[in-house]
Amino acid sequence: MTEKSERLHPVKTLAVVGVGLLGGSVALAAKRASAVRVVGVGRDAAALEWARGLGILDEATTVLGEGVRDADLVVFCTPVDVVAGQVLSAAPHCRRGAVLTDVGSTKAAIVDAVSDRLPPGVAFVGSHPLAGSEKQGADHARADLFHRQVVIVTPRATTDKGALDCVVRFWTELGARVVQLDPEAHDRALALTSHLPHLVASALAGVLPPELAHLTATGFRDTTRLAAGDPRMWGAIFEANRDAVLAAFDRLTAQLARFRNALAANDRAAVERLLGEGKDIRDRLSR
Amino acid sequence: MTEKSERLHPVKTLAVVGVGLLGGSVALAAKRASAVRVVGVGRDAAALEWARGLGILDEATTVLGEGVRDADLVVFCTPVDVVAGQVLSAAPHCRRGAVLTDVGSTKAAIVDAVSDRLPPGVAFVGSHPLAGSEKQGADHARADLFHRQVVIVTPRATTDKGALDCVVRFWTELGARVVQLDPEAHDRALALTSHLPHLVASALAGVLPPELAHLTATGFRDTTRLAAGDPRMWGAIFEANRDAVLAAFDRLTAQLARFRNALAANDRAAVERLLGEGKDIRDRLSR
Repeated sequence: MTEKSERLHPVKTLAVVGVGLLGGSVALAAKRASAVRVVGVGRDAAALEWARGLGILDEATTVLGEGVRDADLVVFCTPVDVVAGQVLSAAPHCRRGAVLTDVGSTKAAIVDAVSDRLPPGVAFVGSHPLAGSEKQGADHARADLFHRQVVIVTPRATTDKGALDCVVRFWTELGARVVQLDPEAHDRALALTSHLPHLVASALAGVLPPELAHLTATGFRDTTRLAAGDPRMWGAIFEANRDAVLAAFDRLTAQLARFRNALAANDRAAVERLLGEGKDIRDRLSR
Repeated sequence: MTEKSERLHPVKTLAVVGVGLLGGSVALAAKRASAVRVVGVGRDAAALEWARGLGILDEATTVLGEGVRDADLVVFCTPVDVVAGQVLSAAPHCRRGAVLTDVGSTKAAIVDAVSDRLPPGVAFVGSHPLAGSEKQGADHARADLFHRQVVIVTPRATTDKGALDCVVRFWTELGARVVQLDPEAHDRALALTSHLPHLVASALAGVLPPELAHLTATGFRDTTRLAAGDPRMWGAIFEANRDAVLAAFDRLTAQLARFRNALAANDRAAVERLLGEGKDIRDRLSR
């Protein structure tokens, strides 16, 4: 009851934990949207100082408990296997009424790990902006990274409504379109829309004989672009969302088997039917 | 001996058979490179007239034998299962010294089908520009489509050297980087660099539940972009290059199985090693 009135709107102090492409973009976008003060938390003091010099951050620290102390909202922009531990470490240092969220590509494991383990007056709501790049680092941060992009926010029935409102409002003010899903529905959907494409792009790049590199054109490069992502970061995502990724994988394998059977049988009508199915779905998406 | 002196350099009259994205771009690029007269041959008189009105063509006809009559060079820009028949139909109407080429995505089937079946003084050399788009139609034609793009030219040992020179020079003048490969080496390479990515993009798009379309971002769209290609055109490509595509397919399946085993065993180090292999290869390509 009293929790809600304690939430601050708008956010006056924002802490960003992990100042890379996403964290840096959260900071830049928030500063463009309002007069927020941004505190950056990271491991690399020189990189933080560099980001502060560029105006991405107002303050910077390598000490998590210090960085979150004054924050109304803390956004964790670190790998999915690190977020929950950092949330639990940070929470006792947070002010009463603080709202915590993240940008991780998987949600159920994180939400489960922190639920019922936060001190009174501190709430966590999972987020996942469908924005990013195979590029890494704050030097690629952009104030418009979230503009018109979908951000999935993943409350459970037990999630504090004031905290949910705060997080939804925050992303909306950054220009995003917010979609709410429960954490498990998020993970099943993203296994198909993001994690499976990454795995396929990586496998396809992995079987290219290097001596054929000069015979690739935009088609190969588009299809394999995701393979340039950070293996450590994606290893954590696949681990956290293993069951849903395996289920998505098996759907793809079945579709590939249909293609192979049609090709092996020299059944051109069947090949074209399968190509038509893919085209119908692809044509409904934007470029 | 005498053949060579009969070849015209530069090409004064160019015939383009099939005036779509590629044919229209060949016409525009050739006109920009030199004072060539371009005759367009197609099935749709209204579309040809429209292309002529736009300045893409100087003359247009729906009659193949008429369109190629004065041409020094004829470029067939039609589906791969149509090219050889058109080359054989057109050749008796061609002038002595005429050079014929194509832009098809497979080469051995076409080269085999026409070799030793052309009248004296008419020569065919296969070409494949690694340029194009999932867009179709002459309204997307661009004079710079081949600029800095690779064009693979596929002579055999028996190919007329004058005709080969003519074709290599033509693409070079259009701004392309010419790579020579024998037709079978071309087909094996393209199975991995182009045909397999198309098939994978199509399968990946094909397993997306339509209700999740709003949860896709640039990653999914990049990885599936090729799936928007014309099923009929690609059905012909897969049919013509079936054996090499099946071999490429099996390489991918083996790599995907490595990923699945590593995921199922919860072996994160193995997953990251596989992701690292893909990243190493992808990082060597341009964006």
